[in-house]
Amino acid sequence: MNQNLILRIVGVILCIEALCMIPSLLLSVFGGGPDQRAFLYALLICGGVGVLLSLIRADNTRLQTRDGFVCVALCWIVLSVFGALPYFFSGSCSFVDAIFETVSGLTTTGASIFASPASLPRGIQLWRALTQWMGGMGILVLMLALLPKLSEGSVNLMKAESPGPISTKLRPRTGETARILYRIYIALTVSEALLLRIAGLPLFDAITTALTTISTGGFSIRDASIAYYQSHLINWILIFFMFAASVNFTLLYLCATRRFHEALKSEELRVYSLVVVGSSAMIAADLILRTGRDIGSAIENAAFQVTTLISTTGYCTEDFDLWPQFCRCILVLVMFFGGCAGSTAGGVKVSRFVLLCKSLRRDLRRVMHSREVRPITLDGHRVTEETVSSVSVFFFAYIAILLLGTLVLTLDDIDFTAAFTASLTAISNVGPGLGAVGPTCNFGFLSGISKLTMSAIMLLGRLEIMPLLVLLMPSVWRRK
Amino acid sequence: MNQNLILRIVGVILCIEALCMIPSLLLSVFGGGPDQRAFLYALLICGGVGVLLSLIRADNTRLQTRDGFVCVALCWIVLSVFGALPYFFSGSCSFVDAIFETVSGLTTTGASIFASPASLPRGIQLWRALTQWMGGMGILVLMLALLPKLSEGSVNLMKAESPGPISTKLRPRTGETARILYRIYIALTVSEALLLRIAGLPLFDAITTALTTISTGGFSIRDASIAYYQSHLINWILIFFMFAASVNFTLLYLCATRRFHEALKSEELRVYSLVVVGSSAMIAADLILRTGRDIGSAIENAAFQVTTLISTTGYCTEDFDLWPQFCRCILVLVMFFGGCAGSTAGGVKVSRFVLLCKSLRRDLRRVMHSREVRPITLDGHRVTEETVSSVSVFFFAYIAILLLGTLVLTLDDIDFTAAFTASLTAISNVGPGLGAVGPTCNFGFLSGISKLTMSAIMLLGRLEIMPLLVLLMPSVWRRK
Repeated sequence: MNQNLILRIVGVILCIEALCMIPSLLLSVFGGGPDQRAFLYALLICGGVGVLLSLIRADNTRLQTRDGFVCVALCWIVLSVFGALPYFFSGSCSFVDAIFETVSGLTTTGASIFASPASLPRGIQLWRALTQWMGGMGILVLMLALLPKLSEGSVNLMKAESPGPISTKLRPRTGETARILYRIYIALTVSEALLLRIAGLPLFDAITTALTTISTGGFSIRDASIAYYQSHLINWILIFFMFAASVNFTLLYLCATRRFHEALKSEELRVYSLVVVGSSAMIAADLILRTGRDIGSAIENAAFQVTTLISTTGYCTEDFDLWPQFCRCILVLVMFFGGCAGSTAGGVKVSRFVLLCKSLRRDLRRVMHSREVRPITLDGHRVTEETVSSVSVFFFAYIAILLLGTLVLTLDDIDFTAAFTASLTAISNVGPGLGAVGPTCNFGFLSGISKLTMSAIMLLGRLEIMPLLVLLMPSVWRRK
Repeated sequence: MNQNLILRIVGVILCIEALCMIPSLLLSVFGGGPDQRAFLYALLICGGVGVLLSLIRADNTRLQTRDGFVCVALCWIVLSVFGALPYFFSGSCSFVDAIFETVSGLTTTGASIFASPASLPRGIQLWRALTQWMGGMGILVLMLALLPKLSEGSVNLMKAESPGPISTKLRPRTGETARILYRIYIALTVSEALLLRIAGLPLFDAITTALTTISTGGFSIRDASIAYYQSHLINWILIFFMFAASVNFTLLYLCATRRFHEALKSEELRVYSLVVVGSSAMIAADLILRTGRDIGSAIENAAFQVTTLISTTGYCTEDFDLWPQFCRCILVLVMFFGGCAGSTAGGVKVSRFVLLCKSLRRDLRRVMHSREVRPITLDGHRVTEETVSSVSVFFFAYIAILLLGTLVLTLDDIDFTAAFTASLTAISNVGPGLGAVGPTCNFGFLSGISKLTMSAIMLLGRLEIMPLLVLLMPSVWRRK
């Protein structure tokens, strides 16, 4: 394993994290916030360690698949620990809570231990939003965009950090792909912030909301989340951007280069749109029939909650935990489903479900026409058997982690629904669950063990399991 | 497709079902029960249709894989409809309820719509137990044992009806294998009935309980289930037989032929025993620590509930729905896990979990040692890639049905825990769930749609999904 290079990359990543703390520091200094020292110390420690590590000499700049996985896993763990420093130094919470909040931010989960985010200092509020934005597209992807020549085989870093069964490749060079992705990411964020500002949001609200929407994060600076703004226009703007951010960025790139026709041919997009519209329609119908709500409000709230949970953002316009059981169950299922591969969304991902359904159909065909084996295709391209098999294995691992997570959480004696949805919301990187961890609650009441378990599950969900499991393999740590 | 032969087999199966109604008829005639006519009519209709169908001439006696699947699926649906007649004719319940109860019996689920099974006529009580016994080892397997020469390629019937990823093959001839399996099945049932009688149970209780234990069914003729007997000895006898019935019958055959050493080498048995002991220990510890219960009672009740739920029997000695959340969650997980392949138990099955874990380990190795591919083995034998892939696909289909079932059940506005565990208990063929469908409740309150949905899920679970899905393929119904 290329240890030196991996440590060097961890160092560079820490430097980037330190740079990301500067806006919060400035905000707290100029705003006279009580968190000035917290950010100053955190920045110095994070930057100091980062610079030291990035000075390590690595003559061999070659990264193999395994190195890519280990590097990404290490980076995310280190980022979580150092990212927790501002919360901890500012005295906002305990260190375990700070870790939970940082992991929840970086993984774009958006589950919070703070009962009242509105009462936090501005610097901390911005830091919460920024962790989500950093984690959304991926901080290693950012590094590849900024420093494409740091390593060879950087495609292995991209593969390990980007979600989905098939990794995005817009250009032959990974650095170029990373730059294009970040350009789209920034363009979306800026446009959303502008639109929200025009729609009447205060500037700070517009910026932090845009940062947490495009990363499908879901942190809000308001205690009531988006419900605080009480605006139909803002709700629909968010629905649009949450949907956009949970679509494969390759398709957004096709749209940006005016190849709409190609983009619309995507099977994943079609299935995803169908699921979003179908689920919203079922919930709206159930709300109208069972609770006698008026049509406009039913459609708006159904569309908002479905989009926010399927895109794994996790904002809230209403306490859906009070909705009929059928609606709540649909919401649980869409959390599990997740957005498209190659987006900032979490969950199992649409393309995996498409591939799994196609595998099932192939098995049925095999029974019908004894042993005829046809390759599985996606968007007309043949998918390798290795990918098909790794998708099934991923699905199994996802369920196993979800259920084991549920078990650990019940040690706190919370009921099955709350424990299951807490574990689900963690692995799918959504934010709220049902019951004790519903949209109007927070995760502060959980025990330390539960918080650390959920943090681990969130990381497993964000990195799509394998990188962290590779880190647990004994052979990684054995010297040759 | 060989339609004539399939119809003929359906006829033979109906004749066997009619024969199985005779004991109940005799019991109701000699006992002077109010259900005499119900059984007489049911027997005549079932037997009449059976004889008519079995007279169909089938010159071609060859069954292909596809025919095997279609035949098994059709047989089970027809068996469920005709098996419901005694309940319906005796006026015990509506026709939908009768279907639910019959499917629950045949699939050895043991979920009941009757609030008080103790108040049912004796003939009906015996019929409930007998449906479970018929379904446990499989009625087509019984047919193969009795009439091995009815068709060629009968291995395809065996494959479609027997649970597990790899079909049991004790002898080169399917008929012989089927006979051995039934011999073990009968031997276990008789020995349990004898032991229970000696332990003090009334004869009728001993027989019906033995019939529903060895089939891992779980129907009881007592309203309080096994708790009624209040006997430690009976609890431990049942724990032993439930465990034995949920172990691969191949291993029981090895034991019967004194090849204990070979039997103990089975990976599936080892993992299964470990899970049973581990789960019981965790529950016992939690009961002792959290509820201050004495050690003996904690161990007995933990072992009983774990064995009864993991073997997917579903008896009850205590309302585990009142236990701490951690205990309840373990019980939910073991329901999902299930017993060994090639037994009468339901659930995903131990060997599938073993294969899925090995696939995951292989994928991790692939990352570590770029693209080295080793075959997966079980008990030292190489497992084909086709089997590995079909296990993953099965797992996906299992979860998909479980979650879609949950969604349909929430239409009755029952909460997530109840709907999820009801769907789980149906697909794993267990019996009780949590909350509104807990061990002291029954399923009578559900709507007709929910009952039919659960019936479909129970059949999907018992036949391990594929046969019923094959029946839905349009190409099955197309004439060549």
